[in-house]
Amino acid sequence: MLTHVDHIGIAVTSLEEALAFYRDSLGLAVHEIEEVPDQKVRVAMLPLGQTHIELLEPTSPASPIAKFMEKKAPGIHHIAVAVADIEAVLANLKARGVRLINEEPLTGAGGKRIAFVHPAATGGILLELCQSA
Amino acid sequence: MLTHVDHIGIAVTSLEEALAFYRDSLGLAVHEIEEVPDQKVRVAMLPLGQTHIELLEPTSPASPIAKFMEKKAPGIHHIAVAVADIEAVLANLKARGVRLINEEPLTGAGGKRIAFVHPAATGGILLELCQSA
Repeated sequence: MLTHVDHIGIAVTSLEEALAFYRDSLGLAVHEIEEVPDQKVRVAMLPLGQTHIELLEPTSPASPIAKFMEKKAPGIHHIAVAVADIEAVLANLKARGVRLINEEPLTGAGGKRIAFVHPAATGGILLELCQSA
Repeated sequence: MLTHVDHIGIAVTSLEEALAFYRDSLGLAVHEIEEVPDQKVRVAMLPLGQTHIELLEPTSPASPIAKFMEKKAPGIHHIAVAVADIEAVLANLKARGVRLINEEPLTGAGGKRIAFVHPAATGGILLELCQSA
């Protein structure tokens, strides 16, 4: 059902500071930097094998990422795993009584179909399921 | 320098509870469960594409994983990236003034050569570099 880790979402206070480490010191390439007004974030995607490192910088104190860092700290915000059939995975999790944030898939960046599993079900991780468009 | 995400280390209070989700609900296979007396943990490795989900359950309150959960909470403890030449990566990071926990590689499980980068340098993540034996 799950094929690979699609991306690791990291909440950062400054994209420039984070890129100084991930791009300049570790040598990762930056695939793209885009602003996502819906989520009030600027996002840098850095490919790393099958996975992307996704750096998330809030563009407003009202951003969910700003609120996450206020409550917790900068660091990992979510882990996304790629699935072949998100409807089937969600139906199976629902049938097993697993607590979900999204019972139906939403449309995310790049037309991906996504849904989040509640951290209470995963041992404390915000887990995103995502199916490519 | 970096080839892929090798594993995602998750601190859990109970391996059985975590496996009920990752193995039974998500359908991941369990590659192995082993006790690592040095670190006072029981570890379950679940392959997911190029990566493994590494579930870490403390076997003693003196375990670094128990202390991590006491201070923070259950959830992601570290991210490990695979590198082809750990000496070269460490030399480069040192030359750039990046704060390291281990300036020289240690020998980890399975004979891997590992070293940790300090969370202060990475935007809040405990980052492991690992080179296969």
